[in-house]
Amino acid sequence: MEHFSDRLLNAIGRKGAPVCVGIDPVHERLPGELRRRIDGPRSALAAISEYCSTVLDAVADAVPAVKFQSACFERYRDEGVETLYSLIADASDLGLVVILDAKRGDIGISADHYAAGMFEPWVDRDELAPRLAVPDAVTINGYLGGDGIEPFCKGGRGAFVLVRTSNPGGDAIQQARLESGLSVAEHVAGVVNELAREHMGTLGYSDLGAVVGATKRDEIASLRSLMPRCIFLVPGYGAQGGGAEDVKACFNKDGRGAIITASRSVIYAYEEDDSQPWADAVAEAAQVFAGEVGEIAPV
Amino acid sequence: MEHFSDRLLNAIGRKGAPVCVGIDPVHERLPGELRRRIDGPRSALAAISEYCSTVLDAVADAVPAVKFQSACFERYRDEGVETLYSLIADASDLGLVVILDAKRGDIGISADHYAAGMFEPWVDRDELAPRLAVPDAVTINGYLGGDGIEPFCKGGRGAFVLVRTSNPGGDAIQQARLESGLSVAEHVAGVVNELAREHMGTLGYSDLGAVVGATKRDEIASLRSLMPRCIFLVPGYGAQGGGAEDVKACFNKDGRGAIITASRSVIYAYEEDDSQPWADAVAEAAQVFAGEVGEIAPV
Repeated sequence: MEHFSDRLLNAIGRKGAPVCVGIDPVHERLPGELRRRIDGPRSALAAISEYCSTVLDAVADAVPAVKFQSACFERYRDEGVETLYSLIADASDLGLVVILDAKRGDIGISADHYAAGMFEPWVDRDELAPRLAVPDAVTINGYLGGDGIEPFCKGGRGAFVLVRTSNPGGDAIQQARLESGLSVAEHVAGVVNELAREHMGTLGYSDLGAVVGATKRDEIASLRSLMPRCIFLVPGYGAQGGGAEDVKACFNKDGRGAIITASRSVIYAYEEDDSQPWADAVAEAAQVFAGEVGEIAPV
Repeated sequence: MEHFSDRLLNAIGRKGAPVCVGIDPVHERLPGELRRRIDGPRSALAAISEYCSTVLDAVADAVPAVKFQSACFERYRDEGVETLYSLIADASDLGLVVILDAKRGDIGISADHYAAGMFEPWVDRDELAPRLAVPDAVTINGYLGGDGIEPFCKGGRGAFVLVRTSNPGGDAIQQARLESGLSVAEHVAGVVNELAREHMGTLGYSDLGAVVGATKRDEIASLRSLMPRCIFLVPGYGAQGGGAEDVKACFNKDGRGAIITASRSVIYAYEEDDSQPWADAVAEAAQVFAGEVGEIAPV
């Protein structure tokens, strides 16, 4: 199977912008017409499912990739997981590269189980029309080291290891300073870079990438140089405060090496714009986002 | 609701040993009579479900707690998650304290979703006989800091943060040395200890504990002193190589402060002992394990 990194870079080339829309749905923020149908957890999940299908349709022309926040679906237990994988199949059918933001991390044998659950096609309930409901890549927590990371980087699939997260709490651990002078995040970057060399695609990037928050502007250049052939998945753009200038340093001189993610500023765009149907507001926000990032990283 | 730490310590007192059986089922190692029925993923999951029910019955008299490895169930997607929570309800019905080893870790808002999914009762499919299918505590990856940990430590539930894992790969990050002289694992221990003070139970221990591998004998005393009021969840006993002497330092002078976990050496005990029905071999292994650990930490 084609390398994940090649698939992602080619999709970015076709759409003209290294961007990704984060699908982080919460029932409280759905459009009124969907929210009004909710009277309990099952109807909330049904509304979220319908909402996400429409969002995927609305953004598919403008962006090469989507990232599903697994927690928003796992909140609804097994039924949420079923909905998640059905939406992953929808996104694949639309030609989108799919990243599952699940932040798993365990010792080798358990990491194997997680990777199998995520990447091996499961028996579809609708066996008459089986679809490939597996993500192209997942996010991984690297605290357990290489044997917790390697299982996710096989068979044309990819993984992004958490290196520097966009949340305020991350500093307490990720910014601790080592004897070597590096921060813990930079040390993790070195571990990721070593593993990444073993998983190179044909376009010069690894199938093993890194999560680097857009809100950490001062640290991005150092992380870029520590992981030259890793693609950065960059959350925190838009609602979390990161802007186009902040993320410039995520890209290499070839204009590649990063994919910028915006979630709430795109998928809830109708909260700020009630001049058009809600799905049109989402589609427009995705186009604007792709245009902004496309300008700083022409592909 | 009663504090998690009180509930766990009282259960340990009743059973007389601070031990936990890890439920990490893989279909390849099930007893022959169950394995022979497997002809695909659905029948594998059905066999695992039946096996786990029997294992829970077999160990419930000897041990106060069980720990489910979420990956072994998530491997079977939504249907595996449904099975997992059904088994969690079975274990609760047997009076066992239930730890869900899911190693989740995300930024605050997503951590809230994970905590809600795990700790809030979901609509049971069998609405005529609803059962409380929620774990008493979960394992958490602390790399994202306090806002990723706090949501799991509420409403009488508990969490164990990964501090020092039992796998070989963990050294690359957890053993890196900081300017302060501490290892990264010891630094994480300090972060956990600060948060733990805010979640104290009435018996003097926090609802926020730590995962500390039994295979890391040289580091345990230091971690014990850095987190004096945290209960250690200690995997790696038995099949992974840790023994009774290795785990002594996990306990405080009051004989409390740790719960030792064995998985494969108990749940697959019939592989070494075909002199009796397989469930009896598991029950006996659980008794032997509880006896061994009970001797070094009399309660």
